[in-house]
Amino acid sequence: MAFIGTVAAEVLIPLAAVIGIVFAVLQWYVVAKVAVPSHSGEGGGKVGRGRESDGEGEEEEEEGVDYRGVEARCAEIQHAISVGATSFLVTEYKYLGAFMAAFAAVIFVSLGSVRRFGTAPEPCAYDAARTCRPALANAAFTTVAFLLGAATSVVSGYLGMRVATFANARTALEARRGVGRAFAVAFRSGAAMGFLLASSALLVLFAAVNLFGLYYGDDWGGLYESITGYGLGGSSMALFGRVGGGIYTKAADVGADLVGKVERNIPEDDPRNPAVIADNVGDNVGDIAGMGSDLFGSYAEASCAALFVASISSFGADHDFAAMMYPLLVSAAGIVACAATTLVATDAGEVGGVDEVAPALKRQILVSTVLMTGAVAAVTFLALPRSFTLFDFGDHKLVKNWHLFICVSAGLWAGLVIGYVTEYFTSNAYGPVQAVANSCRTGAATNVIFGLAVGYKSVIVPIFAIAGAMYASFRLAAMYGIALAALGMLSTIATGLTIDAYGPISDNAGGIAEMAGMPRRVRERTDALDAAGNTTAAIGKGFAIGSAALVSLALFGAYVSRAGIRTVNVVSPRVFVGLLAGAMLPYWFSAMTMRSVGSAALRMVEEVRRQFEEIPGLAEGLAAPDYATCVRISTDASLREMVAPGALVMLSPLVAGTLFGVEALAGLLAGALVSGVQVAISASNSGGAWDNAKKYIEAGATEAARSLGPKGSEAHKAAVIGDTIGDPLKDTSGPSLNILVKLMAVEALVFAPFFAAHGGIVFNHL
Amino acid sequence: MAFIGTVAAEVLIPLAAVIGIVFAVLQWYVVAKVAVPSHSGEGGGKVGRGRESDGEGEEEEEEGVDYRGVEARCAEIQHAISVGATSFLVTEYKYLGAFMAAFAAVIFVSLGSVRRFGTAPEPCAYDAARTCRPALANAAFTTVAFLLGAATSVVSGYLGMRVATFANARTALEARRGVGRAFAVAFRSGAAMGFLLASSALLVLFAAVNLFGLYYGDDWGGLYESITGYGLGGSSMALFGRVGGGIYTKAADVGADLVGKVERNIPEDDPRNPAVIADNVGDNVGDIAGMGSDLFGSYAEASCAALFVASISSFGADHDFAAMMYPLLVSAAGIVACAATTLVATDAGEVGGVDEVAPALKRQILVSTVLMTGAVAAVTFLALPRSFTLFDFGDHKLVKNWHLFICVSAGLWAGLVIGYVTEYFTSNAYGPVQAVANSCRTGAATNVIFGLAVGYKSVIVPIFAIAGAMYASFRLAAMYGIALAALGMLSTIATGLTIDAYGPISDNAGGIAEMAGMPRRVRERTDALDAAGNTTAAIGKGFAIGSAALVSLALFGAYVSRAGIRTVNVVSPRVFVGLLAGAMLPYWFSAMTMRSVGSAALRMVEEVRRQFEEIPGLAEGLAAPDYATCVRISTDASLREMVAPGALVMLSPLVAGTLFGVEALAGLLAGALVSGVQVAISASNSGGAWDNAKKYIEAGATEAARSLGPKGSEAHKAAVIGDTIGDPLKDTSGPSLNILVKLMAVEALVFAPFFAAHGGIVFNHL
Repeated sequence: MAFIGTVAAEVLIPLAAVIGIVFAVLQWYVVAKVAVPSHSGEGGGKVGRGRESDGEGEEEEEEGVDYRGVEARCAEIQHAISVGATSFLVTEYKYLGAFMAAFAAVIFVSLGSVRRFGTAPEPCAYDAARTCRPALANAAFTTVAFLLGAATSVVSGYLGMRVATFANARTALEARRGVGRAFAVAFRSGAAMGFLLASSALLVLFAAVNLFGLYYGDDWGGLYESITGYGLGGSSMALFGRVGGGIYTKAADVGADLVGKVERNIPEDDPRNPAVIADNVGDNVGDIAGMGSDLFGSYAEASCAALFVASISSFGADHDFAAMMYPLLVSAAGIVACAATTLVATDAGEVGGVDEVAPALKRQILVSTVLMTGAVAAVTFLALPRSFTLFDFGDHKLVKNWHLFICVSAGLWAGLVIGYVTEYFTSNAYGPVQAVANSCRTGAATNVIFGLAVGYKSVIVPIFAIAGAMYASFRLAAMYGIALAALGMLSTIATGLTIDAYGPISDNAGGIAEMAGMPRRVRERTDALDAAGNTTAAIGKGFAIGSAALVSLALFGAYVSRAGIRTVNVVSPRVFVGLLAGAMLPYWFSAMTMRSVGSAALRMVEEVRRQFEEIPGLAEGLAAPDYATCVRISTDASLREMVAPGALVMLSPLVAGTLFGVEALAGLLAGALVSGVQVAISASNSGGAWDNAKKYIEAGATEAARSLGPKGSEAHKAAVIGDTIGDPLKDTSGPSLNILVKLMAVEALVFAPFFAAHGGIVFNHL
Repeated sequence: MAFIGTVAAEVLIPLAAVIGIVFAVLQWYVVAKVAVPSHSGEGGGKVGRGRESDGEGEEEEEEGVDYRGVEARCAEIQHAISVGATSFLVTEYKYLGAFMAAFAAVIFVSLGSVRRFGTAPEPCAYDAARTCRPALANAAFTTVAFLLGAATSVVSGYLGMRVATFANARTALEARRGVGRAFAVAFRSGAAMGFLLASSALLVLFAAVNLFGLYYGDDWGGLYESITGYGLGGSSMALFGRVGGGIYTKAADVGADLVGKVERNIPEDDPRNPAVIADNVGDNVGDIAGMGSDLFGSYAEASCAALFVASISSFGADHDFAAMMYPLLVSAAGIVACAATTLVATDAGEVGGVDEVAPALKRQILVSTVLMTGAVAAVTFLALPRSFTLFDFGDHKLVKNWHLFICVSAGLWAGLVIGYVTEYFTSNAYGPVQAVANSCRTGAATNVIFGLAVGYKSVIVPIFAIAGAMYASFRLAAMYGIALAALGMLSTIATGLTIDAYGPISDNAGGIAEMAGMPRRVRERTDALDAAGNTTAAIGKGFAIGSAALVSLALFGAYVSRAGIRTVNVVSPRVFVGLLAGAMLPYWFSAMTMRSVGSAALRMVEEVRRQFEEIPGLAEGLAAPDYATCVRISTDASLREMVAPGALVMLSPLVAGTLFGVEALAGLLAGALVSGVQVAISASNSGGAWDNAKKYIEAGATEAARSLGPKGSEAHKAAVIGDTIGDPLKDTSGPSLNILVKLMAVEALVFAPFFAAHGGIVFNHL
């Protein structure tokens, strides 16, 4: 018998979640101590005015600047960003609420129809000798779980956005007092978001398992089948959050850059640019709320996949609750390990200078991985029996507890490899980005060619890392192993989200510093924070896609098992055709999102140009631009344009399963997975490389970099073009593809009983 | 019993091949009637001099121009291009000859080792009751077939290049007399190449089957197993031809454009540009010789796959030679149908104006498809028994002859769909390219974003067309059906190659017209021919990738069968890991080729800049540039840079099969196939769209187009950047990926006995 029993599991999991929430609140409390004067409520019109200092002799400004004025402007800008982000999210969630209600009905009706809405108990799916709850109950609880997942996702995204918009002005203000203090504020805010999200995701899931268990009793098959709805709900919201937020932020960003930097030659985040508030709002709704929902979705799905597979293994058959809860215990241990890791960054010595920011963030990933490896070992040997059986597509497989330790660790360390490789390809400290920057010498075309090549090349090692983790965990513990590898990669999610959220917060802080007219020295500090943030953003995307690949494979396995497919044979027409079409979906999806960003950016450009032409004194900084119209353009565009790609992802599995059957759908999922991962990684890293190649030229830290610059040189202009092209790749298409890959798989899993019963209308006749 | 017996098949196939060759020679003869003064032999130094006419009043020049001078210059330039192309190909083939000899040794040793080089007869692989020839004989004959395929590929590429360099100046000269006459010359030259290649490919294969048959007798399993070496040889050469030629042409093209068009603001193909000869040579070694080798490889592989699968079906078991030869009979019918189609273009009315060029080319594809459908019906019902059995991975499958008619037609018509969709996305007559052109208004970044989106979007319908053809033919006749669908798509190869070769010939003609100082009116005609050629080039690439997808699947099926794999189950760790890694290979490969083009282009740019700076009077057209150095840079770069991507493709299957076993290799092949197809189509079509968006702005045929132009406007500059980015995508990476996909599959097939006997060293221990 294992050391951790049912009672211990029932205590430890919520305890860790509560620790995480308390930890998050503490971080928030520390951040809140940075005073920002309360917003006067006179509206954002003031934001554009009063740039007191812009010109020569800035080095002395820091003393002579009007502190009260700067602080008041920071508060105003923060308020404007917060209002814009809140109003967008509220509108978005309103539409999505209606969609979710409709989709919940689809789930209930489809799954209820499997046994014609009968309410009689049925023989269990995996043990016909016992009776289980009726399919109708599963339909109802799946629907509830779906709505719960969606609601948790909304709360995660919304709270993340609130934390970030609370922190951005504070980071800018602290930057006056040194890079270390600014870093601490941005980092603690990121931690507040990260721990809040990781803990509430765990807590809600744990509560759902226990509450659903009141009805299901010992029918664990039905219980954990229903729980998969939680993953689907989380991922559906994440899809729209990512796509909508991604279109929002990049329409504004691209539009602002095209007119501001390229045509008007004014700096990034200049308050004269009408799209600048929309751009900053975008960071919060796209990179913060979207990313939060995304990783919440991954976490929820990985947990659901692991629980579902475990429920049909001997854990479920023997009703060993502590062992069943192993996935949640791993996540609980992760929260504690990440909290310890965070203390290393915040309390074991302050970041002293600009150069120490990136290493400090990198160290976080390493420390959390090392600590977590120990924690996983502890949980594994304390909570699991020495050996047990798993169901491996009909066969029984004997698994030892240390096998599971290897599975979780494989995912964890594969995540570290992906993170470090991503850093190598997107940080301007290394060769690839420097080669991209150097290719700007001959213009934008070579810059784009080299950037695309870097993105393609950056796929190689992550794929081998994922493949290695997959092979090891697959061999040792079949699909349960894969799910655990995914959870392993996500077990440091709190730290991952911390450094992820840190990026856009710093970016916003830089924007606020610029808009509030802070001295150049301050902006240099926020720029340095932001440059490190670009790399961590790429690392975060690497984690997101790596975990998405593992999660999808686990969900795929669970789907195959639940749909009653014996083998997914590539050499069969249905599967192969599905595989080919599935591999195409990421391209179709990217075509839609890229085009959406392009069109919305064109409209934004027209509006910004119009304002510069029609508002007298705007170019000279004497009149305020009309920020609200730009915010509205981004809002409208993102709400309208997210429908088609969202529908593509949500409908593809339904159409494939209903019309072409479970095997074609299996092929479709596998194809989308293996193709989508490549597109996502290359898109994210090409974008990151271009962004940092531009920053490398701007910073001019080395002789080579200075020979390409300064800002405004031909090489720099070429770099700006690359950066702009990378924007939709790295912040809209690329990260949304994670969700495409995961969501289709979890949707297939949830609807598997329906497809198995009624699917394949077309192929059954051809 | 079928109508066409053994004797009829033995007569009809070579007869069709001979008809094709005679037809090609006739076309060549008509082209040769256009007189070009013999080259004086005084060297290329003259080429750059003597631009008599450039300025106002060009409309009258046509009368006043020095005809003899122009013709002499045309001859000189043609000579320079021909010498450059010949010398490159000779050097390339010298290196490749050594490689092929070494690889032939690898094949012989690997396959010979399967039965430890024993010379005793063995039980047949698919019928243990009979005895077959020893494995050593198969090793020897496979090696011979490999060398034969490589040699035929070399001859195809070389002859194509000779025809094209023979025709380019003639096309330019005829353009003085009208667009219709120029079109006829370019088109007939393309036909000369197309028919020569299609016929010789068929003839050599037919001869090999008959000669090998003298040894093998009734051991058809061994005979057609050995014949697969022909496909491998053809494809290996094609890989290096495509990659080497692609790097050559795009290094020169990108380098020429970056300095010429962007920095110096001189027109394309201006003789002052030192890289201009290298650029024109590149068209011939890349787009002509490379494309020829590529399609020859596809044809050879599709035939080999079909023959191999047929040999283990009842055709082989019953020794029904006419039925066995069905794939070759289809190709033979294709040559005749294409000859008839060509007469429609050349003799059923001349092309009257610029607007009629593209429709005339499009009509060729439609006419050849319609005629071929009839021809396939005739061959099918005359050559095949009413019904027969096929081996479908262990099962027996009863197939009727009309099933095979549907298989071939499915491929044929899927090709037409791909061609027309490609045209829609890459021709400037339709919305997509116009939207890309319009996005140039806001600069290069939006142009690139829209162009990428168009490329992604253009994948959708072709994939559904390929998937539909696959499903139909797979269901009806298993892997034999797939191979026949591939052959169906390739059955109009003579017409496909005709319109494919037409493009670079017109491109070269435009270059020669520009360099020889022909009047603007002539250049407008060659530009119109060239713009239509861009679209046909994209169509040709669409065919190439579509057929490659079908061919690879057929080869994949043959590999699975020959390697003795029962099911390729996606839900097994080996297969899935292979699938994921395989899907990554196109990215790795593209990273290499893109970077190669980028680096070579940078060197080219430096050389061109150096010449403009150091050669006095070059910019003014008073001194001749040093073309030879630019030719050398392209030659050196392409020979050096083709090694790594070539090695990646050639070694991946060997490494995967040897270390990770036959199942992992099966996954690898499937992954590379489903991912590579998408990358290839999107890369080709993005590139085509950018190129024609630029041409759309330059031509200024509509009000919208004129509002973006003229040449030199900001929008046009943005379009040039897009065009330059598209160059390596559409002419290096994209088309090479076809070969990656096919070559890995045929290599796996050839080495299957070796992998089955000795493979899987690593995974067997993990």
